[in-house]
Amino acid sequence: MDSKFKQTFFFTFLLFGIVLTTVSAQEDNSAKIPAKGYAAMTAGRRFVPYEFERRGVGENDVLIEILYAGICHTDLHQVMEDWRKGIFPMVPGHEIVGRVSQTGKNIQSVKIGDYAGVGCMVNSCGECEQCRKDEEQYCPKTIWTYNCLDTDGIPSQGGYSDKIVVNEKFVVKIPEEAPLERMAPLFCAGITTYSPLRYHRVKPGDNLAVAGFGGLGDMAVQYAIAMGAKVTVFDVNEGKRQSAIDLGVAKFVNVRNEKELDGLNGSFDLILSTIPTRYDAGMYLRMLKVDGAMVLLGMPPKDQTPIIPAAALTGRRKIYASLIGGMKETREMLDFSVKNKIYPHVEIIPIQKLDEAFQNLAEGKAPFRYVIDMKSLNDAK
Amino acid sequence: MDSKFKQTFFFTFLLFGIVLTTVSAQEDNSAKIPAKGYAAMTAGRRFVPYEFERRGVGENDVLIEILYAGICHTDLHQVMEDWRKGIFPMVPGHEIVGRVSQTGKNIQSVKIGDYAGVGCMVNSCGECEQCRKDEEQYCPKTIWTYNCLDTDGIPSQGGYSDKIVVNEKFVVKIPEEAPLERMAPLFCAGITTYSPLRYHRVKPGDNLAVAGFGGLGDMAVQYAIAMGAKVTVFDVNEGKRQSAIDLGVAKFVNVRNEKELDGLNGSFDLILSTIPTRYDAGMYLRMLKVDGAMVLLGMPPKDQTPIIPAAALTGRRKIYASLIGGMKETREMLDFSVKNKIYPHVEIIPIQKLDEAFQNLAEGKAPFRYVIDMKSLNDAK
Repeated sequence: MDSKFKQTFFFTFLLFGIVLTTVSAQEDNSAKIPAKGYAAMTAGRRFVPYEFERRGVGENDVLIEILYAGICHTDLHQVMEDWRKGIFPMVPGHEIVGRVSQTGKNIQSVKIGDYAGVGCMVNSCGECEQCRKDEEQYCPKTIWTYNCLDTDGIPSQGGYSDKIVVNEKFVVKIPEEAPLERMAPLFCAGITTYSPLRYHRVKPGDNLAVAGFGGLGDMAVQYAIAMGAKVTVFDVNEGKRQSAIDLGVAKFVNVRNEKELDGLNGSFDLILSTIPTRYDAGMYLRMLKVDGAMVLLGMPPKDQTPIIPAAALTGRRKIYASLIGGMKETREMLDFSVKNKIYPHVEIIPIQKLDEAFQNLAEGKAPFRYVIDMKSLNDAK
Repeated sequence: MDSKFKQTFFFTFLLFGIVLTTVSAQEDNSAKIPAKGYAAMTAGRRFVPYEFERRGVGENDVLIEILYAGICHTDLHQVMEDWRKGIFPMVPGHEIVGRVSQTGKNIQSVKIGDYAGVGCMVNSCGECEQCRKDEEQYCPKTIWTYNCLDTDGIPSQGGYSDKIVVNEKFVVKIPEEAPLERMAPLFCAGITTYSPLRYHRVKPGDNLAVAGFGGLGDMAVQYAIAMGAKVTVFDVNEGKRQSAIDLGVAKFVNVRNEKELDGLNGSFDLILSTIPTRYDAGMYLRMLKVDGAMVLLGMPPKDQTPIIPAAALTGRRKIYASLIGGMKETREMLDFSVKNKIYPHVEIIPIQKLDEAFQNLAEGKAPFRYVIDMKSLNDAK
């Protein structure tokens, strides 16, 4: 070989090496990531271990090793196809916290090792009127965390698993000092109740009611009290009276005891309903002041949606449904929660107890919130 | 008689005279005033000439010689007991205009000879939160113009009559230049549609819909267009298409023609529904944008209230019912109407045609608004 040939060969080889390295780095980024979790293989509340793949970490993505995942009543609705046909196998879970283990090259809001949370959404169009208003939850193209087709046409899978890859915009950094095992429910139950309270600019002296004292009710009561409101709680479970009183409510009303319902008509500025089954909304609407509002959170199955009597809407008494909150508001909710030490009441369970937990949820016997400790994923069934 | 006796007698006589004069003046003021009109003697839409008494003109009262009275769909609901048991004999009518013929000593806002109007209310408590907010229509003690017990326990009687005595606060002066025969419907149909448009601060560019194009729809369309909104009208009566177009609507939708309904979902900021019979509110709710509102005006009979599907309330799409407006807003509505020359389309009828008019109303064959010319009251039946 003459020196020119050697030189050419060397540079060609160098160039090839650079290209190869770059391509392989890109391939590494886009390579699928093996994941495991628990899935419902068909409609119903039976879960089994399930192995699947997450997409590779793109330049705007964050990979999170999941540490805790909350169980929301919506998870039950989704596996039971209460609202619409589901995509199976389905790995539910949209109350997710964990540790950042990889970041795409554009990521600035979190770094490897940070705690982070993910809620009900993993993407949206970013361009529509709702996205521009920081209300991605009302974007017509929102990608839900599970039971939804992602932009690549592959079903999204949720937090009952060991890891998840999420666009940075939908990842929220969690401060070190926060009690991680109680943080997951904030990303659905927390924002779902915080958002309508902010929308109504709840202020000291407002007279509020929370109907249904479960996972959402627990958060709604705490936020409303922190905002200075006087809060009345309605539930059918007498066993929850003490918990409500402990949180500082003005009144606990057992709706099965008619006498406790007396004298409440026309008294509330705002009622948040978290009731997940059929009921007569008229009773609550009549308890609103003129110009008051009743907000439906947590929609019951489609054959059990609440009955709304038009006559109870006189006096500009409004009814509407609110869905979680946008990502900007989710960050605000997290700050507010940590600052005011507002966290859900949780019961930590191993993932092997999913079937039992769902059974209790279906029977109305669940505690405020089950949270799965994902360390259990490697334990025997 | 000695002079002292004469003097005493003279002063006693003088005093007696003064007392007598004063008492008789008071008696004049509080003496009942004979009135005549047309009443439904029992539930049903049959009217007969009826003589009754109005209360005397108190110091805060105005006596109005009625010149025109509008016929509102509510009058039909009331005589038919569609909402609740009625008080009979019933003289309906809460769209009233006439000429002031007597005023109490405290009256300053009108003088004898002025034109004045009266709407759905003739009194309220004046002290509650709603009264203090100038929203007397939501006062728990509002005295309705007819089919209501007045503070003295005597049934109130409405505008299908020759005169009415009303507390000054509920009397609105009408400018001389206004077309009196078209003014009566402003006091119900006008304020009922004006109030929710103001409540929502309707502005140029807003996309509005008016469902039901009758007496209320006619006013709603005109006000909304004057406020700069783009207006779509929904009705089942093809014959009204041209009237809507003449008023300047962007679109007339015949809801019996499915094709015309295509592509409207998610498009309106506000929908005013004036539909007086049962319908599925879901179709309209789905046409609202996120955060849009549907306002129910003119409630159907209690067994025909609209069906409200909770699922259509997602995206903070609100539904509520609005009732006329307060007296302050009624004065504002009148100014706005006169300034913008917004008046209802009316058909003037003699009072002898009441039965026929009610028949047409019941069958959905009425024009936008019937107005009774009260001069006819003295004509033969």
